[in-house]
Amino acid sequence: MARNIFNPVVLLISLLFSLISFAQESSTVRYVDARQLTVIGQPISFPERPFARLNPAFIQSKSLATKFNQSTGMMVLFSTDSKIIRAKWHTSDMCIVGVNTGANCQKGLDLYIRENGMWKFAGVGAPEMNASCEAHESTIVTGMSHGIKECILYLPLFDRIDSLEIGIEKSSAILPLDNPFRHRIVFHGSSITHGSAASRAGMSYVSRFGRENDLYCFNMGFSGQCKLQKEFALILARIKADAFIFDTFSNPNPHEIRTRFNEFVDIIRESHPETPLIFIQTIRREKRNFNRLADAFENEKQQVAKKMVKNRMKKDKNIYFIDSDGFLGDDSLGTADGTHPTDLGFSRMLKKLTPKIIGILNNYGIK
Amino acid sequence: MARNIFNPVVLLISLLFSLISFAQESSTVRYVDARQLTVIGQPISFPERPFARLNPAFIQSKSLATKFNQSTGMMVLFSTDSKIIRAKWHTSDMCIVGVNTGANCQKGLDLYIRENGMWKFAGVGAPEMNASCEAHESTIVTGMSHGIKECILYLPLFDRIDSLEIGIEKSSAILPLDNPFRHRIVFHGSSITHGSAASRAGMSYVSRFGRENDLYCFNMGFSGQCKLQKEFALILARIKADAFIFDTFSNPNPHEIRTRFNEFVDIIRESHPETPLIFIQTIRREKRNFNRLADAFENEKQQVAKKMVKNRMKKDKNIYFIDSDGFLGDDSLGTADGTHPTDLGFSRMLKKLTPKIIGILNNYGIK
Repeated sequence: MARNIFNPVVLLISLLFSLISFAQESSTVRYVDARQLTVIGQPISFPERPFARLNPAFIQSKSLATKFNQSTGMMVLFSTDSKIIRAKWHTSDMCIVGVNTGANCQKGLDLYIRENGMWKFAGVGAPEMNASCEAHESTIVTGMSHGIKECILYLPLFDRIDSLEIGIEKSSAILPLDNPFRHRIVFHGSSITHGSAASRAGMSYVSRFGRENDLYCFNMGFSGQCKLQKEFALILARIKADAFIFDTFSNPNPHEIRTRFNEFVDIIRESHPETPLIFIQTIRREKRNFNRLADAFENEKQQVAKKMVKNRMKKDKNIYFIDSDGFLGDDSLGTADGTHPTDLGFSRMLKKLTPKIIGILNNYGIK
Repeated sequence: MARNIFNPVVLLISLLFSLISFAQESSTVRYVDARQLTVIGQPISFPERPFARLNPAFIQSKSLATKFNQSTGMMVLFSTDSKIIRAKWHTSDMCIVGVNTGANCQKGLDLYIRENGMWKFAGVGAPEMNASCEAHESTIVTGMSHGIKECILYLPLFDRIDSLEIGIEKSSAILPLDNPFRHRIVFHGSSITHGSAASRAGMSYVSRFGRENDLYCFNMGFSGQCKLQKEFALILARIKADAFIFDTFSNPNPHEIRTRFNEFVDIIRESHPETPLIFIQTIRREKRNFNRLADAFENEKQQVAKKMVKNRMKKDKNIYFIDSDGFLGDDSLGTADGTHPTDLGFSRMLKKLTPKIIGILNNYGIK
């Protein structure tokens, strides 16, 4: 770009642009209720709470009901010719969710715009974490060029959305965008699947996998949960799905894996007799590096998990097991705490995991 | 490991180990004041506050004094034969620091143990983020094997430490460990250098660079600051350093870079006439993807920065400029918000940056 960087005219124009932009944002923005746009990510339709990933009435546990209410993995899709995209949204007033989770991931928004057929990061809707952690307002992106943009806005991974409005220039239009994702892939798992240490809402491995492969993925990851409980199997069995991907060996102990695994599969198989069920081995936790007790426990868990799935595979050709060797690399830098992968851990994990999952899905015409 | 994973005896032993471990942790741990161990990371000795990276009296601004008081980049070094390492520590009562920063990074501890000459992650000291965000107690690692371990404990990146005690088994010993790092490399910069979106205390790019290259690095990164102000130059000029590495073009505007750069260098040059001064171009912020105003502003800033350093290099052969092209990759996944690199962004950045810095330092016998 050939510009005279010392030219005061350029500086002045730049300043003017900033002023115009500020004026636009404060006085010429109109807000549209996100419910008027395309909201996706509920595996079982629940119009009463359009931003809750699952109906909390499905479960007795209060703590799980809270997690069902979260907007984890959900997206708002729209197209607009606005040069500014803002948002106003309400979440719970919970300020801190866990030691690994930043506010952008917990209750922030994450925008991607389609460019040359790819979804490219455009900006975050940063939550307000001062007086209240409940009411938020943010400019996600400004200063954009003319023309229509197709947008995905990811919703918070660890909070619920009580209301969401998208702000655009008054003179511009906003329309619901057709769901661009194909098929229906359900991910069920632990905090790793939930996205505990992802940096922003669209950076869980589930969202990244979906975005990068144009697949419609549902995030049924529940932090601290997913111990192959029957109640989860009953819910999953109700979901219309082309494939299930399970990170279900991270939280149960070896005994739970041994005693629950077959019943868990049986329940899902009743409604999905031939749907591919892909079980991912739990990652090698980096806290095992020096902790021999954790190492022995995790090792046993991994062995039991592998054995249970492999046994089941003998009589069910639509069940798969993906080992997690080398998922996080070998430098112990892939997690926030020895357990939860960060964006770095997820990148390494997806590099190994994606071709394996895609290879299996292709056999079922999922591509 | 050939174990009968279904053997109830193994399960029982495993349970017993857990119980023994719990009993050990609650009744047989003794605490040692970290001040009795080796505490490093202060570029100018300040014994009155051994965990503050700089004396807050050096600066008038209250907000900067708070940042000087933080333990950013500081480490406690020790060796111990304990099989457990715990910690009790006090920080400020600030619960939330920013939307990008998780609590482990903000006020947590991060332990590495030397194995085969390399520093390997062992565990985090997770802060208590419930009633108080001030008093913390955590088991960092347990269940370790016998033998002496050499340890680095990184202190919080975004909080101060008022007190710190290391817990070990009563029957074990703990000793100060000699500083294993060579030379004195001072990093001065913005929130990127400070480590805003690092997942844990030892994951800032400065700490990673130091740990991976056995170099003694000081983190003089100040979030939201480092606009080439004279007061910073005056402090840096007082530091005994073998090299300075600057991320000083992230926060100032083009005008500030133009008007302040030469004076900033002049001040440092008075006390360090031939010390290598390595200026890193500010990273390409991913928020530029669609925001043309940000793109133009950042582009101008980068051009001015490059021009100023290159001009100065004509008369000073010990000044260097490292361009930041491709530092974060090309998939827009390297930051938490379009500006601050995550562990993923830092990994990519270090891959490009490390050989360049090391190449320069080697010319000065720094290796």
